[in-house]
Amino acid sequence: MRASILTIGNELLIGDIINTNAAWIGTFLTEHDIEPVRSVTVGDSEAEIVHHLRDCAKVSELIIITGGLGPTHDDVTKHTLLRYTGGRFTEHTPTREFIEYNFKKRGIPISKSNLGQAQVPDTCEVLFNKAGTAPGMWFEHEGCILVSLPGVPVEMKYLMEKEVWPRLAQKLGTNGSIFRHYMQTAGIGESTLSDIEIGDVSDKLIEGVQLAFLPHSHGVGLRISSTGGTTEEARAKALPLIKHIRSKAREHIYSEVQGDDLPAAVGRLLEHNKKTIATAESCTGGLLGSMITDVPGSSGWYNGSIVAYQNELKTALLDVPESVLKAHGAVSAETALIMAKAAAEKLAADIGLSTTGIAGPGGGSEEKPVGLVWFGYYDGERHFAMRAQFFKNRKMNKERTALVALDITRRVLTGVTRMPYDAPVIIG
Amino acid sequence: MRASILTIGNELLIGDIINTNAAWIGTFLTEHDIEPVRSVTVGDSEAEIVHHLRDCAKVSELIIITGGLGPTHDDVTKHTLLRYTGGRFTEHTPTREFIEYNFKKRGIPISKSNLGQAQVPDTCEVLFNKAGTAPGMWFEHEGCILVSLPGVPVEMKYLMEKEVWPRLAQKLGTNGSIFRHYMQTAGIGESTLSDIEIGDVSDKLIEGVQLAFLPHSHGVGLRISSTGGTTEEARAKALPLIKHIRSKAREHIYSEVQGDDLPAAVGRLLEHNKKTIATAESCTGGLLGSMITDVPGSSGWYNGSIVAYQNELKTALLDVPESVLKAHGAVSAETALIMAKAAAEKLAADIGLSTTGIAGPGGGSEEKPVGLVWFGYYDGERHFAMRAQFFKNRKMNKERTALVALDITRRVLTGVTRMPYDAPVIIG
Repeated sequence: MRASILTIGNELLIGDIINTNAAWIGTFLTEHDIEPVRSVTVGDSEAEIVHHLRDCAKVSELIIITGGLGPTHDDVTKHTLLRYTGGRFTEHTPTREFIEYNFKKRGIPISKSNLGQAQVPDTCEVLFNKAGTAPGMWFEHEGCILVSLPGVPVEMKYLMEKEVWPRLAQKLGTNGSIFRHYMQTAGIGESTLSDIEIGDVSDKLIEGVQLAFLPHSHGVGLRISSTGGTTEEARAKALPLIKHIRSKAREHIYSEVQGDDLPAAVGRLLEHNKKTIATAESCTGGLLGSMITDVPGSSGWYNGSIVAYQNELKTALLDVPESVLKAHGAVSAETALIMAKAAAEKLAADIGLSTTGIAGPGGGSEEKPVGLVWFGYYDGERHFAMRAQFFKNRKMNKERTALVALDITRRVLTGVTRMPYDAPVIIG
Repeated sequence: MRASILTIGNELLIGDIINTNAAWIGTFLTEHDIEPVRSVTVGDSEAEIVHHLRDCAKVSELIIITGGLGPTHDDVTKHTLLRYTGGRFTEHTPTREFIEYNFKKRGIPISKSNLGQAQVPDTCEVLFNKAGTAPGMWFEHEGCILVSLPGVPVEMKYLMEKEVWPRLAQKLGTNGSIFRHYMQTAGIGESTLSDIEIGDVSDKLIEGVQLAFLPHSHGVGLRISSTGGTTEEARAKALPLIKHIRSKAREHIYSEVQGDDLPAAVGRLLEHNKKTIATAESCTGGLLGSMITDVPGSSGWYNGSIVAYQNELKTALLDVPESVLKAHGAVSAETALIMAKAAAEKLAADIGLSTTGIAGPGGGSEEKPVGLVWFGYYDGERHFAMRAQFFKNRKMNKERTALVALDITRRVLTGVTRMPYDAPVIIG
């Protein structure tokens, strides 16, 4: 099946809003074996909308339309679709009742234009919108499916997943249900993960099973998706691939929940192990503590941080002897080791974690280039330092450093001996 | 003049890349009094491209085309435009020389496809691309201007500003030159800034002068733009408005440089005043230190931070007496005042800055709701606390808190007595 995407709204056209809906829909369709062939954005103009409905119908069997469904005069999509399909307005009672219920609950009087949202063309099947007030609409007109959805991303996504896809699956025939599973990895690059760790999976990629690598700032995500007659059937088809990846790359996987991030995963591990952590930061400047405290409830496992940006403070607050700074420098295994131990001791935590490096863009030397970072870890039992070489970009170096420090902690807490990116460690 | 935007690339259609180019071009055109009427995205398909070139020419006098100019077989835009305009390939010598020079400089051998980038249709005027290797092209075909640009955002923007706009300005007639001026404000909301501080500017908005409010995470930006026969003429038209805003809202303006952020501005002030700063953080968890150290060279003015996430550490490391914590709580003016002074003293800095609040989503009470934050400031001469009430979102609360702390510092260093959002202060 081929599809066109028609996004409506002056705010999109003049660039006040970036068109993330079109990208999301493009990805959604592609994942579901529907080919997007064209994506058009027009203003709230009936003539333009009708022109593109006609034009897109020539190259696609499905048109996904978003936007222009609000209660104001600017929004012309519903009236345009009414006239285009030759329908008449009729009330969709469940939508009216849902609007009345919501306004009553919030104690706000309902205006005529609010109630107008329950008026729909009788030429459509209503896609009931539990995420908002504007109903979605499904038309079949001259051999083309027209789906009209609100422009609000959360409402559009809700309707695409819950109302549009089941109907499309029925139209498409057998491959009715879709199953998706996510795995989040850290401490390994995309190509190493794919080529070396996971290896050849061609025999697991049977019909209807797909594997996608999704690199993001916290690591590399994996999305396994499959289709089948039922969700259970789809799941069964994907399972061999999921099990294979788990067996090959388990130590890199920090979560199997979509969108889960590394600080949250480390937080859960600390909570589960009843351990507290503290940090001693130099090059991250507080970012490591900030990432940890982005997680709600982090006061349960995080004690605090000493950010010693000046060398004098590394001596005064973290007991790094002047002689060590002089002999090895602030960016060294020796300094990182002392900082980690001091973090645990001074901040009364079970685990002490440290970072010291050259964030850039200045401050590098031939021996210690920009992007060089030393990490320290201490928990009473283990005491080691690890080295990494990042890039030229200051903010990226800070972020990478904080995440690798967290991944070191995750690996220790889960009994993984290999460190992020297979870096060797120096025992303190 | 009406314009269509035609963005080309399968990666856009399937949503692998979000179409930020279309939004940027939409904004650029709107700012330059050109009306975008349609934005179309298609894959690398000659038939689709030609169809939309014809179709867009019916509703617009200008078509901005991006993408599909790479050296690989996938990229069909240039060949399509050659055939559409009935041209023949010819070599653009400056482009060939530029490509040769760049490859030689990097010591990389030039392939045939690299040199192919210098081949252009003889029906176009070349827009010389100093930001990359694919030249832009300007066609005038059957009464419509077709501008073809690379899809790489930095190259597209360079060519739009340096090559396309001067030619369009000539076509549009008198309003040839454009002048833009940016002002960045902090510590004030958009509506207060616009309605109360700046007030009525209708007499300053003479023909060709525009004022835009651009809220971003660090505050509210102002963009004053104007057009005129020459840049000097355009500038002269905008000057009364700029002077008016400066006189009315000076204390909120932290910079008049586009894209400048508050931490960088505060860094410059500290450097200029030869002052150092240190922080004592609770609810920001290290974010304040991280924002300060995002600025290159911040080791020149930033000493460090003590992040005391646990109350015991506020006592142990920042000398907040248990009795104060018991009587007033950790989120109080009293605690904030002591933390700020301890930051300056323990971290040997001229200025100490503190944050303590309830980031949420949990931990609030009727007396101290989620989003309540106390700030402390100490510099030997001044010692005060300030209160703010933010929202329910944890990450937003942390970010707002760090920025307001920086804005307090900026105001003190520039002699402004009003605090951010006109908050009253409690003198320590």
